[in-house]
Amino acid sequence: MIILGIDPGLATMGWGVIASDGGKLRLVQYGTLGTPAGEAMPIRLRSIFSGVAQLTATYQPDNIAFEELFFARNVTTALNVGAARGAALVAAAQYTENLYEYTPLQIKQAVVGYGRAEKHQVQSMVKILLGMDTIPKPDDAADGLAVAITHAHTAKAGVLFKIK
Amino acid sequence: MIILGIDPGLATMGWGVIASDGGKLRLVQYGTLGTPAGEAMPIRLRSIFSGVAQLTATYQPDNIAFEELFFARNVTTALNVGAARGAALVAAAQYTENLYEYTPLQIKQAVVGYGRAEKHQVQSMVKILLGMDTIPKPDDAADGLAVAITHAHTAKAGVLFKIK
Repeated sequence: MIILGIDPGLATMGWGVIASDGGKLRLVQYGTLGTPAGEAMPIRLRSIFSGVAQLTATYQPDNIAFEELFFARNVTTALNVGAARGAALVAAAQYTENLYEYTPLQIKQAVVGYGRAEKHQVQSMVKILLGMDTIPKPDDAADGLAVAITHAHTAKAGVLFKIK
Repeated sequence: MIILGIDPGLATMGWGVIASDGGKLRLVQYGTLGTPAGEAMPIRLRSIFSGVAQLTATYQPDNIAFEELFFARNVTTALNVGAARGAALVAAAQYTENLYEYTPLQIKQAVVGYGRAEKHQVQSMVKILLGMDTIPKPDDAADGLAVAITHAHTAKAGVLFKIK
């Protein structure tokens, strides 16, 4: 099963693709999609939409897992990061309805086994679980991989969290 | 000039299309796009995206004007209405970059001439300005027409508000 993990964001969206074969995980690719702050909002959203559409076309994931956004500094910020998530979700939903979402707590529990784990512990486990030589950089890309791993582990345990 | 006005929303998005010809306004069509609360978020967003894409294909607007979202009860609500706005903006941006946004204050000033006008005053002016027999219903559709009228008046005055 190919899993695309997405950590949504407006300035930077992290993503990671892994293959999960009966509990065995393999790294496929990871990276970030950035949109310049100087661009107009609709152009940035369109580029997020195209970026996600391109990822699905390239890697043909069976499932797509998103990190849940549940915090924002204020309502204005929430409206903007919500829009970025919306643009990514529309592209994902045009490709498949196998869309899942995990909270940071679920991700930490699935990857490190401890819901209050630190960021660097999550990153070290991503490196170990995918047999990488170094910690994946930047952080957003590591977060994309972490949510993909979470989905692989959760799918194995049979408790999937479809986006409601 | 054909103008599509959009009042973005997750459960109900209002829209209105008008033709503006040297200050003379003509009603083309108006309505709402609804998404059922029971559906999963990505499906609702995809249907908003397709709905806006269909409106642009049908009416071929020269400009699209959005009512600005700047208020939400809380961060969670803002993330969701932000996503709905994002889905609508992506569809709009795939059609044109002539996208504009007006605050409720700007809309009231442009339609009624008074920034603190009541909702029913805005609706009565929409009816009068477009030569309609009755007040357009539901409210969201009237809001879509109001933002289209705002853009027509603002364009005439030469002070356009492109979405930043």
